[in-house]
Amino acid sequence: MPHIALGNDLPGITGLFAYRPQTARPMSELAEVLLRGENSLPRGERELIAAYVSALNDCRFCYSSHAAFAAAQLDEGMDLVEQVRADLGAAPVTPKLRALLTIAGAVQESGRKVAEEHIAAAREAGADDVEIHDAVLIAAAFCMFNRYVDGLASLTPEDPAAYAGMAQVIVTQGYVR
Amino acid sequence: MPHIALGNDLPGITGLFAYRPQTARPMSELAEVLLRGENSLPRGERELIAAYVSALNDCRFCYSSHAAFAAAQLDEGMDLVEQVRADLGAAPVTPKLRALLTIAGAVQESGRKVAEEHIAAAREAGADDVEIHDAVLIAAAFCMFNRYVDGLASLTPEDPAAYAGMAQVIVTQGYVR
Repeated sequence: MPHIALGNDLPGITGLFAYRPQTARPMSELAEVLLRGENSLPRGERELIAAYVSALNDCRFCYSSHAAFAAAQLDEGMDLVEQVRADLGAAPVTPKLRALLTIAGAVQESGRKVAEEHIAAAREAGADDVEIHDAVLIAAAFCMFNRYVDGLASLTPEDPAAYAGMAQVIVTQGYVR
Repeated sequence: MPHIALGNDLPGITGLFAYRPQTARPMSELAEVLLRGENSLPRGERELIAAYVSALNDCRFCYSSHAAFAAAQLDEGMDLVEQVRADLGAAPVTPKLRALLTIAGAVQESGRKVAEEHIAAAREAGADDVEIHDAVLIAAAFCMFNRYVDGLASLTPEDPAAYAGMAQVIVTQGYVR
């Protein structure tokens, strides 16, 4: 049960967004720009970064939803998402995506954990500055979204179909209502 | 030196915002709503929550700026900000603000660290649901801002006058340009 009376029984962040539309608007717009805006990183890869950080933060709602959103937009589907979660070093992703996910993992611990070597490895693998910037900011943003969702104990559906349904909406309509 | 070429030498998050205005807009709007929008929590107290979380995340730029913004909007000034940072339990704040800062400290660790007891203590001290919501979200948002600023190694001025100057701008004009 959520820590505060939301006045709705919507799942996860959608219940929080309905409760407080003033903060929901800029948060949705940030998600839209980061995860769906024009970018050389494919949407599926950006959602994979979001899912990976959510897994590191142990946020079940955010992991389940962004894993579904990533799977819906990656040729390799949910298998790849689960492989990245289980063992990033062994997962069959490109060197560039692995380097960006490694940066995201450092950001999840602390901004201060991102080292010159992480950035150099990403550049060597072909990442440009905007891609590095966006990987850092996606990871940072999910350290917010994850804490918001769990800090207020919002509702976490158990049924995977709930997340597949959300993925349909996000992939076709985006984050901003 | 920042990890990526920002094309400007603006301090901290302002340099990142100038580099990537697409993400700067919703992030600035979120800060404006959370820290300056209509709210039963005074602006100085909301800035104090932001400064406290930034100190816990060891983000020098964000702590120095939001400490200055809090000091400029609290009767007790910088002394109180420094006391809260040094020892929240002993700092001369109201029981309600202490309870909200305690929630913010839990969020900084992980959303999952916020317990029913934290919420009950805040309610007992007079906090309402919106205040609890906003304390959680301010803390979560600064876990993003702090990681963004440090994850890209943005510039951190050493001179306290730089932060006092920023405080003048924020207090009179707000976060949205």
